Amino acid sequence: MAPRTATAPDRLPSHPEPADIRLEAVLHACADPMRLRIIQALAADATPSCGEIGLACSKSTATYHFRVLREAGVITQHYQGTAKVNQLRRDDLNAIFPGLLDTLLASAAAQSGRTTET
Amino acid sequence: MAPRTATAPDRLPSHPEPADIRLEAVLHACADPMRLRIIQALAADATPSCGEIGLACSKSTATYHFRVLREAGVITQHYQGTAKVNQLRRDDLNAIFPGLLDTLLASAAAQSGRTTET
Repeated sequence: MAPRTATAPDRLPSHPEPADIRLEAVLHACADPMRLRIIQALAADATPSCGEIGLACSKSTATYHFRVLREAGVITQHYQGTAKVNQLRRDDLNAIFPGLLDTLLASAAAQSGRTTET
Repeated sequence: MAPRTATAPDRLPSHPEPADIRLEAVLHACADPMRLRIIQALAADATPSCGEIGLACSKSTATYHFRVLREAGVITQHYQGTAKVNQLRRDDLNAIFPGLLDTLLASAAAQSGRTTET
């Protein structure tokens, strides 16, 4: 197996500044069952890597969903060694849209509960 | 000008049952600046017709946006004579996703205020 390349600074993904986070982009990022699941997993465990969130999709699809969340300002992604670690931007989101993230998480939980009941 | 045709029962638009309203669809419906504006207008005035919400777009585009909101379960549309009247599904949404609509409205207001400041 070939050795994995070292993490170069230019591989660090870019993130929107808090002032550039738009509500429409946040809602679009959350308007997908897989991305909702990612947000729920990040809310339950502060810093899982992409691989630690068991998503039923290909790696490239998972990478795409994480990127949508990052570009919308919902999560940060940074490298720890060769692993990409994801975190919810709780403080930024709460400062810009107070209560939105918690309400989205509660709504997702309510829907999960409703789906389980039926 | 040709007379407008009468409202036939089969022209009544369909609406999802509360049990069929999905969070992803609600968020997608709200993830658009024009549709956010419609929701804000409906929150401020209970039952405006499509024409009473001054949207800077063509009639067909406005019709499309109202349809997205209706099919997601965010609004109801019904005819009063020949006018299509729109209403937020406040009670249904609050029962399914408590606090979501108010938080979305507050977030949209926060963003409008932020945009005005800059």
